[in-house]
Amino acid sequence: MTAAPSSAGCAFCAVVAGAHDAVIVAETADTVAFLDRAPLFKGHTLLVPRVHVETLRDLPEPLVGPYFAALRRVTAAVQDGLGADGAFVAQNNVVSQSVPHLHFHVVPRRRKDGLSGFFWPREHYADAAEAAAYGDRVRAALGP
Amino acid sequence: MTAAPSSAGCAFCAVVAGAHDAVIVAETADTVAFLDRAPLFKGHTLLVPRVHVETLRDLPEPLVGPYFAALRRVTAAVQDGLGADGAFVAQNNVVSQSVPHLHFHVVPRRRKDGLSGFFWPREHYADAAEAAAYGDRVRAALGP
Repeated sequence: MTAAPSSAGCAFCAVVAGAHDAVIVAETADTVAFLDRAPLFKGHTLLVPRVHVETLRDLPEPLVGPYFAALRRVTAAVQDGLGADGAFVAQNNVVSQSVPHLHFHVVPRRRKDGLSGFFWPREHYADAAEAAAYGDRVRAALGP
Repeated sequence: MTAAPSSAGCAFCAVVAGAHDAVIVAETADTVAFLDRAPLFKGHTLLVPRVHVETLRDLPEPLVGPYFAALRRVTAAVQDGLGADGAFVAQNNVVSQSVPHLHFHVVPRRRKDGLSGFFWPREHYADAAEAAAYGDRVRAALGP
């Protein structure tokens, strides 16, 4: 998949272009950060690359450093600016991804904010051999 | 906060040092990826920097590119290697952070896997002015 300057009908390309009402909190040459309109907690910020790419794997190599330098900086600012105790950083690829334009969520967290970090049931490997087999599958997909 | 080569008693420094039983799925000069022992879904992988830093903001600038290049690659491998439809990428800073050594979770996702992307109630800004005020607080914390 290639990176396009923008994609027609993409809500986040519209934000990048300034054509969509959004509260912008940070901009760099390569990224734009703005408030999620339906925050998990108020101040919940989304960070997007200006170019239209759908998922993390589609982010061109030269943008990895600039994009994540911005993520690091925005994460600190969300925590500090909102007087939070910490921050939750998350990104959905394909499944549960509401807008097909790469975006990281940065959500302010507070101790005793009523959320547990992981809210999902955990699975269990039957034994060490099963875990090793799963590791093999991921490792094989990495290639040489 | 500074980056230390390792921290006594840190479970993830022990994995990096090879002193802790873990299924390693990827290694680079700067990072190690290994299976979470209590996965959300089997194949759930953790990615850590070899140096001991606690949170995202503590990751030294020169490591941002190498660390996230590895995250991008591991995310693709978790999805492809496990035949998943997508991947959930997440990281807790301070709150809900079980091990105080920076780690991103990479979790394989499937359509109809029974999870909704966000499982948390959403909040609502009272009006545009309230949203703008939150944006101002984050922006101010970014500094010049």
